[in-house]
Amino acid sequence: MIGKNKLGACLPAFSSCADRFCLSGYGKGGKTIEEMLDMASRVKEIDGLELIGNWHINDKNIELLKRIFKERNLEVCMITPDLWTQAKWGSGSIASPDARTRKEAIQEIKKSMDWAANVNCKYIDVWPGQDGFDYPLQADYINSWKWLKDAITECCEYRKDVKVLVEYKIKEPRTHCFINTAAKTILLLQGLKNTGCIIDFGHSLVSGENVAEALCLISSYRLFEYLHLNDNYSLWDDDMIFSSVHIPESMEIIYWLKKINYTGWLTLDIFPYREEKIPAAKNCIDWLKTFFEIIDKTAIEEIDNVLKKGDANESVALVRKLLTGK
Amino acid sequence: MIGKNKLGACLPAFSSCADRFCLSGYGKGGKTIEEMLDMASRVKEIDGLELIGNWHINDKNIELLKRIFKERNLEVCMITPDLWTQAKWGSGSIASPDARTRKEAIQEIKKSMDWAANVNCKYIDVWPGQDGFDYPLQADYINSWKWLKDAITECCEYRKDVKVLVEYKIKEPRTHCFINTAAKTILLLQGLKNTGCIIDFGHSLVSGENVAEALCLISSYRLFEYLHLNDNYSLWDDDMIFSSVHIPESMEIIYWLKKINYTGWLTLDIFPYREEKIPAAKNCIDWLKTFFEIIDKTAIEEIDNVLKKGDANESVALVRKLLTGK
Amino acid sequence: MIGKNKLGACLPAFSSCADRFCLSGYGKGGKTIEEMLDMASRVKEIDGLELIGNWHINDKNIELLKRIFKERNLEVCMITPDLWTQAKWGSGSIASPDARTRKEAIQEIKKSMDWAANVNCKYIDVWPGQDGFDYPLQADYINSWKWLKDAITECCEYRKDVKVLVEYKIKEPRTHCFINTAAKTILLLQGLKNTGCIIDFGHSLVSGENVAEALCLISSYRLFEYLHLNDNYSLWDDDMIFSSVHIPESMEIIYWLKKINYTGWLTLDIFPYREEKIPAAKNCIDWLKTFFEIIDKTAIEEIDNVLKKGDANESVALVRKLLTGK
Amino acid sequence: MIGKNKLGACLPAFSSCADRFCLSGYGKGGKTIEEMLDMASRVKEIDGLELIGNWHINDKNIELLKRIFKERNLEVCMITPDLWTQAKWGSGSIASPDARTRKEAIQEIKKSMDWAANVNCKYIDVWPGQDGFDYPLQADYINSWKWLKDAITECCEYRKDVKVLVEYKIKEPRTHCFINTAAKTILLLQGLKNTGCIIDFGHSLVSGENVAEALCLISSYRLFEYLHLNDNYSLWDDDMIFSSVHIPESMEIIYWLKKINYTGWLTLDIFPYREEKIPAAKNCIDWLKTFFEIIDKTAIEEIDNVLKKGDANESVALVRKLLTGK
Repeated sequence: MIGKNKLGACLPAFSSCADRFCLSGYGKGGKTIEEMLDMASRVKEIDGLELIGNWHINDKNIELLKRIFKERNLEVCMITPDLWTQAKWGSGSIASPDARTRKEAIQEIKKSMDWAANVNCKYIDVWPGQDGFDYPLQADYINSWKWLKDAITECCEYRKDVKVLVEYKIKEPRTHCFINTAAKTILLLQGLKNTGCIIDFGHSLVSGENVAEALCLISSYRLFEYLHLNDNYSLWDDDMIFSSVHIPESMEIIYWLKKINYTGWLTLDIFPYREEKIPAAKNCIDWLKTFFEIIDKTAIEEIDNVLKKGDANESVALVRKLLTGK
Repeated sequence: MIGKNKLGACLPAFSSCADRFCLSGYGKGGKTIEEMLDMASRVKEIDGLELIGNWHINDKNIELLKRIFKERNLEVCMITPDLWTQAKWGSGSIASPDARTRKEAIQEIKKSMDWAANVNCKYIDVWPGQDGFDYPLQADYINSWKWLKDAITECCEYRKDVKVLVEYKIKEPRTHCFINTAAKTILLLQGLKNTGCIIDFGHSLVSGENVAEALCLISSYRLFEYLHLNDNYSLWDDDMIFSSVHIPESMEIIYWLKKINYTGWLTLDIFPYREEKIPAAKNCIDWLKTFFEIIDKTAIEEIDNVLKKGDANESVALVRKLLTGK
Repeated sequence: MIGKNKLGACLPAFSSCADRFCLSGYGKGGKTIEEMLDMASRVKEIDGLELIGNWHINDKNIELLKRIFKERNLEVCMITPDLWTQAKWGSGSIASPDARTRKEAIQEIKKSMDWAANVNCKYIDVWPGQDGFDYPLQADYINSWKWLKDAITECCEYRKDVKVLVEYKIKEPRTHCFINTAAKTILLLQGLKNTGCIIDFGHSLVSGENVAEALCLISSYRLFEYLHLNDNYSLWDDDMIFSSVHIPESMEIIYWLKKINYTGWLTLDIFPYREEKIPAAKNCIDWLKTFFEIIDKTAIEEIDNVLKKGDANESVALVRKLLTGK
Repeated sequence: MIGKNKLGACLPAFSSCADRFCLSGYGKGGKTIEEMLDMASRVKEIDGLELIGNWHINDKNIELLKRIFKERNLEVCMITPDLWTQAKWGSGSIASPDARTRKEAIQEIKKSMDWAANVNCKYIDVWPGQDGFDYPLQADYINSWKWLKDAITECCEYRKDVKVLVEYKIKEPRTHCFINTAAKTILLLQGLKNTGCIIDFGHSLVSGENVAEALCLISSYRLFEYLHLNDNYSLWDDDMIFSSVHIPESMEIIYWLKKINYTGWLTLDIFPYREEKIPAAKNCIDWLKTFFEIIDKTAIEEIDNVLKKGDANESVALVRKLLTGK
């Protein structure tokens, strides 16, 4: 827990973190799920973990998973349907040009909803990362949008005890993903019930967004449900340690979480390729705590007033004062 | 005219094109509006010109403008309210934190609507380029969004004979502009009548969008009304000659214009800083005509079929064949 | 062969192409080296293939490799020492802060030089992709540069019958790689013999370079030796089909290859994740042939003259005419 | 003064800051040079100001300038030859395809050297911002490089009492500038005497460099002479307040300035379009002082040791501790 928020982590944060050049991973992570859970449970603030379909959770291991989570007093905070770990999703999942693949993808999402209900998890994370295109003149944009709408609608209606969240990302693994910004995700979800949006701090940055602005927009449409924390250099989803690069933007997001009275999960979605995993998680948490402390001890009106005036000189001075006391 | 589309140009395409380093402009353009119109009228395909409030049109010169346009058989295809050429808009126009400035900005838009009606122009182009922020912790995102919504609503209702179009751009002159993507513009305009969206090819590229995808999205919300043509390197609004950089993407947009049966204006919004202005406009038009010819002589089903399959190899081969015949 | 140039391909172009989300690969590639060679040999223009240390070549399989290459009448055009496929290189290879790792990396390079001599290959490709840093205040830039210099010097002197080429890339797998631009590679290699530079078209784009300019610079320092062909969207090394995105820039590079009278290898370094591999290679070759034909049938003075004037209108018109005949 | 370093500012930091949309400037600056000097002298740490040829200094006003600087106890810390404020430089200055323009540009540089000697200023800043190209197939890269080399050589030899510094920037006003990175600037200056390199913090960021790494590279070639401070979002030269965005990178540069024992000028090159100018300068200085204090009170070995290990977890923790004490 950090303040009123439960703290989560994606399981790959404790894995050996492969990339396309080092396919066996850079190491230092757990090899089995149990080992990864053990590592996570050594970070005392962590309350829950996200699981990825196929990689971590399936019909056969679900009872085992429930047991090993319970033993470590951990929740499953999210299940991410496998729409991207297998070659069959290469040309898309719920927006694949192939109708059978789209159907299969919807099935995969429903399966995750069932798993989620089974493990007492409120959310699934639909990240249509393979749904997009790589080349000009490759995609039928009009039909793709309909397929996305139809699929999300069908999933939201499937069962009401698990909420269908959608996570946006502008690129990777496709050079262009359809669900790429906060605003487009809102368009996708408008009119649906039992749904909401996941903001991934780093995805938002790569979309060219100011993350806090994205948060406010989604929040004003009552669709903000969940937050992934990490960082990057704004050009690629590097999944780095939170606040290691974007310090003022990271502090800004904590201010806005307080303003909108967010009481949901704060989940680390880092991929510490070359780093020791436990210290990497702790580094994120230490930054988080630092910002919560700073924002909590500052009169909220002081920050409100700076925003009201919109004077950049005051903004810069405020950031410096809050961070360093100078 | 190009096919079923009237051809327009923004007046600065024939100006001397200044930037922040060369404030007197790189030259070769017209000095007065009449000189610029003369240059434009030497490009025979051009049917109309866009005017910018304050820079080009005002209460005093409107009768003169009508006359000099008529003399050259040119239309005013768009009026852009001045929300960005004066210091008073520096901290925003319709979303300025200052209430009086917001009011003044709305007045400026209404004034442009009146001018437009007067000169028989159907559209105004609300480009809230100064509405945004430059620094973290500078803007109140939640109120800004409300102000934008309120202002556009008020303007749309002001008079029904002039359509209020909104043009999005992710940055410049602010480091972050609020109305930054196709999807966000749709959100802004939803529920309003007498409105629509302008896509600027280059703005869309800088937003990280595939322009044709943006076009299809806006079109599916029945908000696509107007197109600005130019090009850039995807990182900044360089306002270069159309199709000088993004050749396949430029051809793709022509295909989609045909698919959605677009019969509106195609308007050159280039800023040929160092170039002769008339050849620069002609270069855009020659590329446009080349693409129209290519798409017209190709069975539309041939392209449709490539998109249906989504096979990148076929997309690349199609682009090469359409362009070069190989 | 294409004109006076031998045509090569990197072996992964015929593999199943994994990324960090789909670690088993998107498929459609060969599983064994022999299968990949078989695929490559079905592309008749291909004269040789690049091999990566550890992934493809090692002490045990070298005699087998020689046989299977000979059987298919293929050369080994390049060996890339394994400085990046294993966890042990995670914090760097020849510029690792760990002295033992640096030594091991140099050994790995020398081993590749021996292999290259053994299989009658003239070149090795030192790509120090893991040498860099991910976070601010992580690297000792001054010592890193010395280590890079020392290592390359030692390798160049190791044996004179194999040339030590260096390939630059600005990011990935590190968020910042040391050897990141053409100019920095020249600085690294200055004063050394038996060395040269590999330009990878896509790496150069991601560095913010115009590839032809990088080629000319390297060439003027007499260090240009080898070219990798592919394409991307200028922000990430997408390893896409050549000329699928950057058409004018691709044509420009062919003009300059002719101007500098380049007779070396043209090697496809694509990663066709979701595509059939043989058509992907053929697509690259078809674009290459198209450009060679265009440039060959154009009087070189015609292009020279456009460059001499530096008038962008003529450049754009030239590109259109060369491509489409309009 | 800040520590051992004199503090400078570019004069436009106190001007009304125009851009291409608001050509009369966003205001709040001085209108005459004297007004701008008055504003600068109200920032007590400022020791000197940079002047731009044509905009600020010319044959006629030089005696006046000397007097008004002296009256305010200010130095001229740099003169920037006018190679970019007039239409005649539109197609380049020292690397223009036009020989007469190149000659004129060299004259302009020499004139600035004479002015510099006259006002007792040690440096001129050759920023060849117009030397580059905008479109593919527009520039003759090979000759351009020769022209750049020749021009800088001629200027360095012109007189020895004024040092010819070169400032690099990857884009703007051209879409591609020739002198674009630290490494290329080193190549340009190699072998010359009486020369050196200016790093502009923001230019370096837009080049994709880590600024501290660029500093170390230039320093290892004994060419580092001068530093411009500002900030941006890494994609465009926004000329923002120092350390308003890149906090860890800004602190890192201060550490390295200490390591290489830099005793030269620290000069603010900000363009506070919408801000009050004096507070903007003070904000930069307050961040600078904060970092100097932090680095001075920290045992330098503590930071050295983190860099020696290259462990990102330690880097992130160090940044947090230095900034916030946590």
